[in-house]
Amino acid sequence: MIIIGELINSSRNSIANAIRDQDIEAIQKVGLDQWKAGAKFIDVNAGTFDDKEPEYLKWLVQTVQEVADVSCSIDSPDPDAIESALSVHKGIPMINSISLERNRYENMIPLIAGTNLKVIALCMSDDGMPKTVDDRLRTADRLINRLLQNNLPFENIFLDPLIQPISVDTSFGIEFLNAVEKITTNYRGIHTICGLSNISYGLPARNFINRAFMIQAIAKGLDSAIMNPLNKQLMASIIAAEALIGRDSFCINYIEAYRSEMFDF
Amino acid sequence: MIIIGELINSSRNSIANAIRDQDIEAIQKVGLDQWKAGAKFIDVNAGTFDDKEPEYLKWLVQTVQEVADVSCSIDSPDPDAIESALSVHKGIPMINSISLERNRYENMIPLIAGTNLKVIALCMSDDGMPKTVDDRLRTADRLINRLLQNNLPFENIFLDPLIQPISVDTSFGIEFLNAVEKITTNYRGIHTICGLSNISYGLPARNFINRAFMIQAIAKGLDSAIMNPLNKQLMASIIAAEALIGRDSFCINYIEAYRSEMFDF
Repeated sequence: MIIIGELINSSRNSIANAIRDQDIEAIQKVGLDQWKAGAKFIDVNAGTFDDKEPEYLKWLVQTVQEVADVSCSIDSPDPDAIESALSVHKGIPMINSISLERNRYENMIPLIAGTNLKVIALCMSDDGMPKTVDDRLRTADRLINRLLQNNLPFENIFLDPLIQPISVDTSFGIEFLNAVEKITTNYRGIHTICGLSNISYGLPARNFINRAFMIQAIAKGLDSAIMNPLNKQLMASIIAAEALIGRDSFCINYIEAYRSEMFDF
Repeated sequence: MIIIGELINSSRNSIANAIRDQDIEAIQKVGLDQWKAGAKFIDVNAGTFDDKEPEYLKWLVQTVQEVADVSCSIDSPDPDAIESALSVHKGIPMINSISLERNRYENMIPLIAGTNLKVIALCMSDDGMPKTVDDRLRTADRLINRLLQNNLPFENIFLDPLIQPISVDTSFGIEFLNAVEKITTNYRGIHTICGLSNISYGLPARNFINRAFMIQAIAKGLDSAIMNPLNKQLMASIIAAEALIGRDSFCINYIEAYRSEMFDF
């Protein structure tokens, strides 16, 4: 599982304060904790700071990479902010995100075309959020083709079929899961990714249902997620789910996780 | 989910003692508890009592049905014991189980042919335990055909693709899951069932991995299980998993389960 740590996001109060105060120590702790917990990318987001977003996003990348040998996921819809962050980033970052919406696509593609950047590609077009498997596959197909035509390597694409809450429509869970299965079957070698927590919007015991959905999505082929790697129960669920579908030779990760007390909660 | 409560089994010491002592109260408590927890069938097994199995199995059915308006799953390879239990059973029981092994099949089929009994059909032949998806599909296909030729209604068949431990072979989990998916796709309307705990044999934190596997199997189409319905975390996992794949309109069961404190553990 390729985990993108989601915690450095200015929509969280503690992070917004740390950014405003330029509190290097606070940001580095959140970055380092996520990296140590297994995140392969650290998402950085300063979206609440309008004018200062380019400056702050750059600062976040520098601050995180000063203490952790890890790539960032640069989380912004603003090409200037992304460019500013890219100018200081070491290694190969992820761009979070592009979609098939005309404005977003046209803003992003000059930054991405012909590069080796990893890219989160949302299955969203100007027709709005997808509902069915077919909606997702149609958008996925067009998006993949366009990205390939713009010389982005196939294996750099992280397709997000977009989770919607089952409290809104009972079919939203299974439509997402079946989309993941179809995409990983039809486009072998492409990554699929999701932001998990939307699934449980409007329901009680959200963490429980989030974990169950992650376990199901892994069984359907999901290999990446934007999430909180400090959530021990969620991490343990991922480790168990991967062992169960044959992604963990001799269950070594699972047994190691057990020994390190990952399952004590 | 159709749950078969597994606790009245003479391989458990407390049950063996209760059977030997003809302790009606003890058996009725275990039966009633499972029924109240949501079991649609109560498995009864007296397999450790060789000669007395027919007598004891009959007594178990009578004892359970005296307090609970529930069908039994009659768990024996011995046609005489099954016949004895059937002679007193009220309603439509389940037979646990038939397989394609020649002896077992020929012993069982006279009891089953042309009836309305529910039947657990193991994907096992004289070639031994199945390993791959294809092994399971081959056996499933032959077994289904033979049962239909013997006038058992299609929807009475509960096909068990047989779980084997991932500690023995890393691929055993995914091969089972994919078999469930293929069977439920190819034979729409047939039931699939499993005994869960084999998956985690030889591993630590077995309950955790059992729950994760149940959640995955439900996503792949499993609709029935032989299990302990008093295991609250497992039951909560099933309720969440079913809501996530669209089997729970408006998430009513999930919300009701939450209100009744199913998720407090």
